[in-house]
Formats: sequence, C-alpha cells, structure tokens
Amino acid sequence: MSPTEFRQFGHEVVDWIADYLAHPERYPVLPPCRPGDLTDELPASGPEQGEPMAAILKDFRDQIVPRNTQWNHPGFMAYFSITASGPGILGEMLAAALNPNGMVWKTSPAVVELEQVTLDWLRQWLGLPDKQFGIIFDTASVSSMHAIAAARERAAPEVRTEGGGQGLILYTSDQAHSSIEKGAIALGLGKNAVRLIGTDADFRMRTDLLTAAIDRDLAAGLRPFCVCATVGTTSTTSIDPVPAIADIAERYGLWLHVDAAYAGSAAIVPEFRHLLAGCERADSLTTNPHKWLFTPVDVSVLYTRHPEMLRRAFSLEREYLQTAADPRAMNYMDYGVPLGRRFRALKLWFVMRYYGHQGLAAIIRQQIGWAQELAAQIDAHPRFERMAPAPLSMVCFRLRGPDEPNKKLLEKINASGEFFLSNTVLRGKYSIRLAIGNMGTTRAHVQRAWQIIQESV
Amino acid sequence: MSPTEFRQFGHEVVDWIADYLAHPERYPVLPPCRPGDLTDELPASGPEQGEPMAAILKDFRDQIVPRNTQWNHPGFMAYFSITASGPGILGEMLAAALNPNGMVWKTSPAVVELEQVTLDWLRQWLGLPDKQFGIIFDTASVSSMHAIAAARERAAPEVRTEGGGQGLILYTSDQAHSSIEKGAIALGLGKNAVRLIGTDADFRMRTDLLTAAIDRDLAAGLRPFCVCATVGTTSTTSIDPVPAIADIAERYGLWLHVDAAYAGSAAIVPEFRHLLAGCERADSLTTNPHKWLFTPVDVSVLYTRHPEMLRRAFSLEREYLQTAADPRAMNYMDYGVPLGRRFRALKLWFVMRYYGHQGLAAIIRQQIGWAQELAAQIDAHPRFERMAPAPLSMVCFRLRGPDEPNKKLLEKINASGEFFLSNTVLRGKYSIRLAIGNMGTTRAHVQRAWQIIQESV
Repeated sequence: MSPTEFRQFGHEVVDWIADYLAHPERYPVLPPCRPGDLTDELPASGPEQGEPMAAILKDFRDQIVPRNTQWNHPGFMAYFSITASGPGILGEMLAAALNPNGMVWKTSPAVVELEQVTLDWLRQWLGLPDKQFGIIFDTASVSSMHAIAAARERAAPEVRTEGGGQGLILYTSDQAHSSIEKGAIALGLGKNAVRLIGTDADFRMRTDLLTAAIDRDLAAGLRPFCVCATVGTTSTTSIDPVPAIADIAERYGLWLHVDAAYAGSAAIVPEFRHLLAGCERADSLTTNPHKWLFTPVDVSVLYTRHPEMLRRAFSLEREYLQTAADPRAMNYMDYGVPLGRRFRALKLWFVMRYYGHQGLAAIIRQQIGWAQELAAQIDAHPRFERMAPAPLSMVCFRLRGPDEPNKKLLEKINASGEFFLSNTVLRGKYSIRLAIGNMGTTRAHVQRAWQIIQESV
Repeated sequence: MSPTEFRQFGHEVVDWIADYLAHPERYPVLPPCRPGDLTDELPASGPEQGEPMAAILKDFRDQIVPRNTQWNHPGFMAYFSITASGPGILGEMLAAALNPNGMVWKTSPAVVELEQVTLDWLRQWLGLPDKQFGIIFDTASVSSMHAIAAARERAAPEVRTEGGGQGLILYTSDQAHSSIEKGAIALGLGKNAVRLIGTDADFRMRTDLLTAAIDRDLAAGLRPFCVCATVGTTSTTSIDPVPAIADIAERYGLWLHVDAAYAGSAAIVPEFRHLLAGCERADSLTTNPHKWLFTPVDVSVLYTRHPEMLRRAFSLEREYLQTAADPRAMNYMDYGVPLGRRFRALKLWFVMRYYGHQGLAAIIRQQIGWAQELAAQIDAHPRFERMAPAPLSMVCFRLRGPDEPNKKLLEKINASGEFFLSNTVLRGKYSIRLAIGNMGTTRAHVQRAWQIIQESV
C-alpha cells in the first residue's frame, strides 16, 4: 500500500473512529447474533487476489462491527468495564506504524526507555516505593505467572535446572482471580500446590486461616513459598488485608505478590491511595492500565523489587542476541517468556500526559462516586439486597429471594441492547454485578440503569 | 478527548504516518544515541495537569522517533527483518478504537470468530490439513510454551494436579530458538529436561542423534514426551528434516511441535510449500504473521490438532465467566494462560484481504530471490565465504580469516545509519547475517548493501 493510499484510507478510518466514538450507543451493547453467524457469512477461504481497501472497510463496518460487543457503549457495565481513550488510540496508531520490537535495548532504545520511564511515572502516582523494576506484559494472567515464577526462583532455584518443585505451596484467597491457579498449573507446580484461603464476610482473605494453612503445610514437610493477595477481586472488588498478609509473608519468608489488576489504578487518586497500603512491602505487584487507566488493551504492568529473580528465572543467552553490556541498556527479553515486545508504553505515555495525574484521578473518583451512590440506592430499596461492600466502582446486588428471578432480570436487561451487566455467585446466591469504568459512562447512564433494573422486576 | 479533538489529531497522526512511511530512511536505521539519553531527557515524573495533544505529538516526533531503531528503514536487515504494512496499521487503528476483549465468545463474537476464520484461511494457504485449531498469542515464545504445555498434558496429565513432571524429556536442536528452552524452564520441566540435539553441516537436526538420545533416555528410565523441530532457525534459517522427525515422534509416541515462526509464511508461496513437508503430521505448529506476513506486531499463531490438550491444561471455570454452552461459541480463555485477548485477528484479516494470497506470495518470492542472488554473489567473491545454506531470505557470510575484521566490518556498516545487519556464531566463527523481509526493501537496497560490504573491508 503506497503512502498515498494509506493517507487516503487513514483519513477515512479516523473519520469512522471519530463518528463511532461520538455515538457508540448507536449499536446494541451486546450484538444480536448467534454463534457462527459471522463465520457463516465470511468466505470459507481467503482471497487469491487482493481486494480494494474500500471493500474491506465496508465489510468491517457491515459485518464485523455489528458482531462486536461494544465495550465503548456507555451501558457496558459487565466484567470490569474498560475503555480506551482518544490519546491511547493515537498512541496505538503510531506504535503500529513504527512497529519496533523492543526485545533488547538496541532493537529500539525508545521502546525500552519509554517503558522504563512511564512505569516509573506510574509507580510514583501509585505511591509505590523507589527501586521498583517495571515490565509490561499483555495480560495480568501473564504478569502474575511471571511473579510466581520469580517467587519460585527465589525459593527453589534448583527448579530452573532440575524441574519439579513439588511441595512448593502457594496461598491465595478463594476470591482470587483464576489466573493465580492457572499460573501455578502452567509453571508445573500443580493445582494441588494452591491453597484457596477462605474469606471473611466482606470477601477478604482471612489471615487466621492463612497462618493456619501455612503452619499445617510446614508441619507436613511442605514448602510454603508465595502468597498472592488481591486488591480488587473480580467478583466483588474486595480488598485483602495486605499489611497483615505482608507481616505473615515476612514471618514465614514468603514472596508476596499483589494482584491489583483492576483496582491498582484507583490508587492514583490521593484519597484512595490507602488501597495499596502494605503493597510497598510486596515483592511484586501487577496492575493493568488497560483496565482502569483508559489505555487500549493490552498493557499489564508487573512491578517487582527483585528483578534479579525474574532475570535468573528467564535469562538465556544466544549468540544472535548478544549485545554490548551497558547497565543502562536494559534487555527486557531476559525478564520473561516473551522475546518480542510491542511498543506498548507509547499509548500509556500518551494517556498519562494528555490527562495528567489529576485528570485521570478526577475521572476515577467520579466513577467511584457514581457506584457508591448506586450502592446506597440499592440499600434503600426494599426488594433488593447488596451482596458485598462496594469500595470502588462496582456494585454486587440481587433481588431478595430465589435465584431464578435474578437470572430472568439479568437476561431481560442484557437483551435490551442498552445495558450489559454480568453475574457472579456470592454466598451461594446468584448475584448481579454492575461495573463502572467506561469513559463514556455518565452519572445519568448509571441512574438510567438503576431505573431499568427496578422497572424490569 | 472529544470525538472532535480525536478527529483533528487523528488526521494529523495519519499524515505523519504517511510521510514517515514514504521516507523511513530519513532517519538513520540505528539511532545515534547512548543508553539513558532518552531517559535523561524526559521528565522524572508524569505531569500533574494534562498537556495539549499537540505538545505530546511534538515530543513524539522530536524525542521518541529519533531514538527508535527504524524497523521500517529499507536498510533494516538485522535479526528477522519485519515490517507492518498499510492495511495492517489500519486494522490496528480500528482494533484500538473498538478495544474489545475476546476472552469468551460473548465478550466479542467478532473477535472470536474472526480469529477462527482468518486462522483457517491462513491454514489453507500454508497447506496444512483440516481440523487444525488455531489461536493467537503475542509471541512465538508464548505459543511454543503453550505447545509444550499441551504435550505435557498428553504425556503426564497428573502434572496439572500434582505438579512436577521430572523425567519428562524434550528434544530440540542446538540451533533451535532459545524460547524452547525457556518454555521448558517456565513450565517447571527444567533446563536439564531439554536435549539440544546436534545438527549436520547444514545446521539441521540430526535424526540419528535424536534417536540415540531418545533411546538413551528411555534406557535411563526417563520419559521422552516432546520433540520441537524448527523450520527456519534464527541463526541460519536452516530447516529440520520434519518428515523424518515425524516418523521418530510417531514411533516413540512424542508430541511433535514445529517452530516455523519466521519461515512458515513462505509456505504460502506454492513453490515453497515443501518447507512445511511433514508438518501435516505435527501435533502443533507456530508461525508469526508479524514476522513475514507484513502484519504489525504482535500476532503469533499456534495451530494444534489437539485443542482438547490445551483446554485440559488451561481451562478453569469461575462463576463470573460462565456462559451458556454452545459448541460454536468458543471461549479462547480456556486454551491458554492469557485471559484477556486483543482483537489481533483484525489486522491479519486486513492484510490477507488487501494483498490476497498471490500478492503476499509474490512479495515473499521476490525477497527470497534477492537473497539467493546475494548468496551467489558472495559465493563468487574470493574474500568472502558463505557460512550456511540460504534457502530463504537470509544470508550468513563472513570475510575469510579471523573474526576481528568481521566484527569491525559489521560495526562500520551499522554505524553508517544506512544499513543494520546482525551477527551470529557458526562453527565457532563470527558471522554476519543479512536478512530481507522489509516491505520497503528493494533489490537495489540489497545490492547497495552488498556494495557497501565489499567497500568496507
């Protein structure tokens, strides 16, 4: 494609994006299609001859967009509601154009150093201590897997060479994200190596049960090595008592990893900085700017105070990648599984600069406020019950009584095309989750959702 | 950022990209900067207040671009030379704007089904048999790690629960990419579980040594479970004898994984389809459209005939992600470590449609031709020696004699700003690699590189 043609279609694409972002609610939030609809409509084979860009863009508009779940729709309140933002999209455009691969410093000083700089800026905004090493992975699942690998490297360095690691035990709560268990399985520690510690009435890890489990495992001759606390669980956004868990980790010599994938961003708001209390003592922490910092997927950040453990776990040298040693020329490829590295820091830099610390904090603060207003309204309603504390931007609730009307309620709302909520099970009861995090969502949208919820029962 | 402001700056960014792509050689291919230069120039902290987009774009142009290694420069002939293409960049722009997360079907039918459709198109172009399951990861390192995990799941399903897996042995050649070893280490199999099988004079895995190693391990009571063959090694683009390795894998019941990260794309050229001979019998294969199919990083494809092994290895259910069962509603999150999934298939779909099968094949065919012309020229030159066969688009060579003049030669060329070549060590000798794969590279650029090489000695 010639630069001239790129220019022509680039402008067309920008106009389409601007129109789309102005009115994402033009499309139903959940696409009214059945599994296989798109597949059946697309050709069974790719074209032998090239096709005009205009035709491809037409099919994008006619076939792809209507089958997309519109995460930009202001009524997208499922899972963790996330959106990109204009500056993030611009950053991604430029990253795709430069298309560098920052595996080592030499393959793009800009990729490597901007990753270091933006992650240090973010560290400061989060109130984390100095001397944190930051690295970007695609998802929090992958970040956490690397954290557990670093923990393993510290506790049982022989595993790198000899494999195994049986008897190494990892602790996390029964509300932790499945990625912790998945990470342990991938790393060959096994599902049985994961202790899902019970939680209190507010879905926070019970430290008495944690201590008891560690003692039991030690008595059985096992090797506790890691505890993963969660700041903002997926089901309820509950916050584990990290300071107390840090005490326990210290006492027993465990690696403390904190999964703050969603909630970490909220700590840039001064009055919510306490969310990360105790995390200054964590050995590693992950947070996802693509979740609540308005940066396009994917960008998950892993911080650690012990980069040498990541490096010991993952560094392998090959002739074709050897470069001159310079302490300031960091080779990120030595700190994880992926060799290739997109220029993911660019979009984050754009977002941080365009909005600034206070601008981003203001948006998050507002979203938390709307959730708390909704929580109070639910509490005041005789037919609804709230199922968990709502410390952040997500509210879990249900109609009092059996599950079935709740399932019907959720189906009805989600079928409307105007809102998309998700569900979970809390204390054995089917519950509805309403998550706010979309940059296009306003207080009016949240209130409209609440109105429709009330009218739909 | 309002849609109006996005429109304004989106157009500015598109114009900048079009100008940049028209003349990437305006910048030296390797940036003339020292480690820390960019870091020192950027503020030590992020801005408290937001900044104008115009200022951010100015800094991008003035500070970031000149510190970037220009992978788009037609003289970028290091590593595997890769470039994006216009349609790929347009696809990435739209993916960033829609910003969906295709973790399950419901979270974006378009993301899930377009991934299935494009990967099936690509499978057909590669001449791979039906019934392949395809999934996109960020890098080949991650794809291969998943392949090895699936192999482990088949051979030793108890590891998922109990951990360990000591005694499981994986075979690959001493020319294989480091990611195979890294994958084994990450998975807890350990470095000692990897046998680096010796290679022949053409850097291809020796099947006699492979068989001998397996027999030796079996006799020692170990458990051979996987062999990783490479089609297009990183050092020399050598091609392991996959049909013979497939015979051995079959005889011993090993999982055969093929790393065709770079060279796989060449198999879309009819006269190079033989590159993947035997791969129809592989249990899994990875190839990276971001390497030689002109798609922006990152998109690495893993094919497998046994998706149930990936699923058994990685599926974990959580209430908040349960969705109605429908065999056509695939949940990719069950097939690997990452939960979140960018809309990576979109850019690949754009590239495949815009160029078509024949268009892409023509570009790859041409690039291979230029490399082979160069190889012949090097062979005909009295002072140079070629160090490996050049079956594809990369040539390994050196000045006859000691290493030092070769190191000086490479330094001189790379300091010119006009070309960037890389190096490796072959049969104990420092060798220079010249890789062609950049869409902006022409025959004239390759010939000019050869001229400069000759003049620089």
